[in-house]
Amino acid sequence: MEDKLQAFFTPKAVAVIGASRSPDKLSYAVVHNLAEGGYQGALYPINPKADEILGYKAYPSVLDIPDPIDLAVIVVPYKWVPDALRECGEKGIQAVVVISAGFRETGHEGMEREQELVRIAEEYGIRLIGPNCLGVIDAHTPLNATFAAGTPPKGPVGFMSQSGALGTAILDWAMAGRIGFSKFVSMGNKADVSEMDLMQAWVNDPDTQVIALYSEGLPDGQEFIRVAREVVKHKPVVIVKSGVTQAGARAVSSHTGSLAGSEQAYQAAFHQAGVLRANSLQALFDYALGFAYQPPIKGDRVAIITNAGGPGILATDQLERAGMKLARLDPETIEKLNAALPEAASSANPVDVLGDALADRYKIALDLVAHDPNVDGIIVILTPQAMTEIEETARAVVEISKQVDKPIVGCFMGEFRSEAGQKILTANGIPNYDVPERAAATLNALSWYREVKHRPAFEAESFDVDNDSVRNLLDSARAEGRLEIGDAEARSILSAYGFRIPRSEIAADADEAVRLADEFGYPVVLKVASPDILHKTDVGGVKVGLQNATDVRDAFDLIVYRAQRYVPGAKIWGCLVQEMVPQGMEVLVGMNRDPQFGPLVTFGLGGIYVEVLKDVTFRVAPFGRNEAQEMLGEIRARALLDGVRGEPPKDKDAIVDTLLRINQLVTDFPEILELDINPLMVYERGRGAIPLDMRLILRPAQ
Amino acid sequence: MEDKLQAFFTPKAVAVIGASRSPDKLSYAVVHNLAEGGYQGALYPINPKADEILGYKAYPSVLDIPDPIDLAVIVVPYKWVPDALRECGEKGIQAVVVISAGFRETGHEGMEREQELVRIAEEYGIRLIGPNCLGVIDAHTPLNATFAAGTPPKGPVGFMSQSGALGTAILDWAMAGRIGFSKFVSMGNKADVSEMDLMQAWVNDPDTQVIALYSEGLPDGQEFIRVAREVVKHKPVVIVKSGVTQAGARAVSSHTGSLAGSEQAYQAAFHQAGVLRANSLQALFDYALGFAYQPPIKGDRVAIITNAGGPGILATDQLERAGMKLARLDPETIEKLNAALPEAASSANPVDVLGDALADRYKIALDLVAHDPNVDGIIVILTPQAMTEIEETARAVVEISKQVDKPIVGCFMGEFRSEAGQKILTANGIPNYDVPERAAATLNALSWYREVKHRPAFEAESFDVDNDSVRNLLDSARAEGRLEIGDAEARSILSAYGFRIPRSEIAADADEAVRLADEFGYPVVLKVASPDILHKTDVGGVKVGLQNATDVRDAFDLIVYRAQRYVPGAKIWGCLVQEMVPQGMEVLVGMNRDPQFGPLVTFGLGGIYVEVLKDVTFRVAPFGRNEAQEMLGEIRARALLDGVRGEPPKDKDAIVDTLLRINQLVTDFPEILELDINPLMVYERGRGAIPLDMRLILRPAQ
Repeated sequence: MEDKLQAFFTPKAVAVIGASRSPDKLSYAVVHNLAEGGYQGALYPINPKADEILGYKAYPSVLDIPDPIDLAVIVVPYKWVPDALRECGEKGIQAVVVISAGFRETGHEGMEREQELVRIAEEYGIRLIGPNCLGVIDAHTPLNATFAAGTPPKGPVGFMSQSGALGTAILDWAMAGRIGFSKFVSMGNKADVSEMDLMQAWVNDPDTQVIALYSEGLPDGQEFIRVAREVVKHKPVVIVKSGVTQAGARAVSSHTGSLAGSEQAYQAAFHQAGVLRANSLQALFDYALGFAYQPPIKGDRVAIITNAGGPGILATDQLERAGMKLARLDPETIEKLNAALPEAASSANPVDVLGDALADRYKIALDLVAHDPNVDGIIVILTPQAMTEIEETARAVVEISKQVDKPIVGCFMGEFRSEAGQKILTANGIPNYDVPERAAATLNALSWYREVKHRPAFEAESFDVDNDSVRNLLDSARAEGRLEIGDAEARSILSAYGFRIPRSEIAADADEAVRLADEFGYPVVLKVASPDILHKTDVGGVKVGLQNATDVRDAFDLIVYRAQRYVPGAKIWGCLVQEMVPQGMEVLVGMNRDPQFGPLVTFGLGGIYVEVLKDVTFRVAPFGRNEAQEMLGEIRARALLDGVRGEPPKDKDAIVDTLLRINQLVTDFPEILELDINPLMVYERGRGAIPLDMRLILRPAQ
Repeated sequence: MEDKLQAFFTPKAVAVIGASRSPDKLSYAVVHNLAEGGYQGALYPINPKADEILGYKAYPSVLDIPDPIDLAVIVVPYKWVPDALRECGEKGIQAVVVISAGFRETGHEGMEREQELVRIAEEYGIRLIGPNCLGVIDAHTPLNATFAAGTPPKGPVGFMSQSGALGTAILDWAMAGRIGFSKFVSMGNKADVSEMDLMQAWVNDPDTQVIALYSEGLPDGQEFIRVAREVVKHKPVVIVKSGVTQAGARAVSSHTGSLAGSEQAYQAAFHQAGVLRANSLQALFDYALGFAYQPPIKGDRVAIITNAGGPGILATDQLERAGMKLARLDPETIEKLNAALPEAASSANPVDVLGDALADRYKIALDLVAHDPNVDGIIVILTPQAMTEIEETARAVVEISKQVDKPIVGCFMGEFRSEAGQKILTANGIPNYDVPERAAATLNALSWYREVKHRPAFEAESFDVDNDSVRNLLDSARAEGRLEIGDAEARSILSAYGFRIPRSEIAADADEAVRLADEFGYPVVLKVASPDILHKTDVGGVKVGLQNATDVRDAFDLIVYRAQRYVPGAKIWGCLVQEMVPQGMEVLVGMNRDPQFGPLVTFGLGGIYVEVLKDVTFRVAPFGRNEAQEMLGEIRARALLDGVRGEPPKDKDAIVDTLLRINQLVTDFPEILELDINPLMVYERGRGAIPLDMRLILRPAQ
């Protein structure tokens, strides 16, 4: 665990700045929670007007405390926070939680106030959680430095929330026994300590088995991916990201003033980082419970044991939808099940022990299935029938689960009679879900994480490219204020980055055009060459398939005439004479910059596939070869790349190579705001790909 | 309510056949539940070895009872069920629940036993629920004729389940106060009474506000659609259909021996019937609660009131994902909110009353929002913060909800402190959901039903067609054992059903082919004409774009030569000479018969759109014009029909017309098992569409 953050969780002495004697104040609640939550270290309420609070001696200022302080919690009105923070700095306190609100969330002035806090914290080397938050809990220390109404039970889930209020709901749910936390942090405005810091702090925390997040935005998306990629090698990370729709994003920005990143970028980033995205709060905690209490799953083969057919089918549906498999039980298991179960029972998976099953029958079946080598995970479904021994069955499940290193989750359905059994399960680390679908989805989450752990390490590939010439070209374009780069210059850039491009050169007049065409060989293409005309086709500025000198002369004159006519005053260099490349499959490779994640690279088939079907996929750059290869498999029309209806397979390696070189280009040059290669002409396997047209948009020079 | 089924729910006298004195028997439980559940009518245990059971005089047989009996519940071993049922018939009992198992669910012999029950029931005019079921509850009578462990509370949900065991779980959940039932039927094997009968029985039941179903299969899919279409005009119907995936379907058939229909057919059928499909049991009851306790929603504009930003965003995301809108509050409402709420609160929707909101602030905000004419439904979110007045806020929500005719749902989050407030809400008919996503999804379900109610009545369109000639053609083909119909005959069928088809005629020799080509005008197409060759292109049997007499002669000889060579022994009639129609957009219209729903009509764009992208949509025939029009809007590539990249819009009316005529053809002729028009060549708007190729597969004549 990083040294600085340690003080937030295991401080030997805590000061609560602004501690009130009035029980209806948040600041009183903080002192109360520290005391009631069993905090064993020194506790100093800071209140110039009080002698003692809740039995603790009060001080006018942290500077008056003779002993060292590890953690301060500030709960004073916003205008006094800077002074309080400065005093913490003077006192040498290096961890401060600012609960007070009135900062960025209130608008421009609040933002300035928040920046002042950051400056003070930097000056004194303070790490700061908040402002505008609920506080911090470490259930193992124990330390409850929040104003929440109570202390949640101890458990293996580390939870961080950007919303403090949501945190209160989660804590209230935990206090009803639904989940236990190792650490709980309400991050508030994240002026300093962010998701990344906490993930890094918790990755080696032995009390934390799974990291769960609620986030409304990740301003430093690149850093998030980098950090999360490392963290998930050791621990699963599950996230709910709100504000995923346009209306949701508007609600976020009016709420916290965050600038929302695009949904595609988040989707790509979570996938690349190996962070499991839950699509609801309920799923977040469903999955967290599975990760927290059950061993990792070793494969995707699930067995279902049930006393009712219907719920077994619902679980099967959900497993199959998620891409998991129903385990094929070992013949020996089936034989033993046949011998042990009544004739009407089903020994195939789902194993139906029948409605009249008592605990012993469940136990026999679970014992056999749990030890079957073909089974990686198990769902035990129980419906509370008249004779069902609910509690005893729960105890049997607990007993068998201790014998095997496989995840077992429960779906003891109902509530009136079932609750007692459900409580036995959860008290013994077997998560129980109301409905089969949620149990199945949780095993799928475990299986998903297994795949993340097996991923090859991320490796950015670097090609040998001519960086300098691109640097010169972009610098001079920006110096001239030309922010849209097309054609001839784009070709130089691609060429510098190792692309094979069609031969081409600008001809100032028709004679030169013919000379170049003779040299390249017919047929050729002519395109208007003008820094002022980006959409050449729209002004009739492109002629393809020119077969001879006459064609070239005619085309040259026509193009230049039209360009002058349709774009009066345009600077016209002449025409670009271009080798005509054979038709291949048209592919699009693009990039635009996401406000939070930076370069977002797009891949899709060209034309209607992109324009009408929106059949594209995304990755945040930089990405590795594996990820580029994944992209090719993610579009719906992927079969076309392998060749259908007698077409030969296309050169997928050449597309991957293109994606990786573009990945490098946009990483090398942050001033490239947008980029499109459209089309990239892709040929049969082994024959490569040629970018036919590219345009770039640059960020203005400062 | 249908007369016959009335006796299941409001019988004046009930006999329990096989009633045991032993409290661990199911049959004892039935008598016990009737007694404990408060049944007020006459109750007759039937047991030849007992004098009385639970204080009720026992009889050896129903025939020994002097008074009339309305309902019998049979709980004897399967081999005695037929005799018991016959005695019921002799006694004149017209409603019988067979709880006993050992029928279709056990295999072939069980199926025969079940058929015997059906025969006996038919003989005596008995309606039969089961066999292999949990029984029947009417909470209003009250009547609990099940062996479940207890009686659920009374409420407005009618629930029917194909799985009895699942029913026990649902009842247990209800007994914990989560939901109340008007009627509850475990349908078991559905030997007689099915979903359709119960829907019809409940549609006019004043105690039932919403009909909820769990089903594993709907053998008579056509009838289901027909009945449900009528029922949903009066009451919402919500269903969970399990076995939707291949693995799930296998689990169903091993469970109940149902023949599973295809997922596409169910999806289309539920949509056409106006039945809301829930994708999990949890969603089924979430939606049912909304329908049961809240008034219908009048639009899709939702307001959110919350004391926490985060959950408000999550609700917003879910609403937007589902296609609903955040209401734009009336300026007057915003003004009043601004005046009433603290400065930091948000008066835009979501309305954030802030974390320190007490009940009065919630009440003011909800009052204003609930009376805003721009708001159709409301979600009230509460996180249990230290000062939050949870119960008082719940009471405020209840009070306001009584003043307005708009659905209001709660999302009081947490459990430890929140539960008291949650109970106040649910006790007063305001469904509460753990997480905002579920609250939002429920309002969306209400909005979905509003759209169903506004649908135009289903109307099958009937064109004036030449039915007889198709009848003759199909009859003679089947008489000859020809079950695959291509080309020339298919063209006659299409022509008889009013399609414009290219001129074409079979030429026996090259001279005749030239004569026909001269008559039709060049260019023409030649295709091999043979009843034995269905895939003409595969054997080189098609030549297009023939420009003159020489081309036609050459093509004729080549095609016949190849056909003889590649399909030795094929009967060759010559070549079909066909007017060559201009290129248009290629579209596919197809049909195959689903085992449960019958004719399932497919529509999609031809070629890769169907083959690679699987971009197709389905309807169960017969369907109306609205539904055919909907199909065109459901494919992902739908924009192509409207014309993109400068293409003119296509003749969508002609496609709709094609779908409706095919709809009629496959409804008229059940012996058509499969049909494909591929391609249907579609031209610009107003220019129609021409089927170029069709094949049919017929059911063998019996």
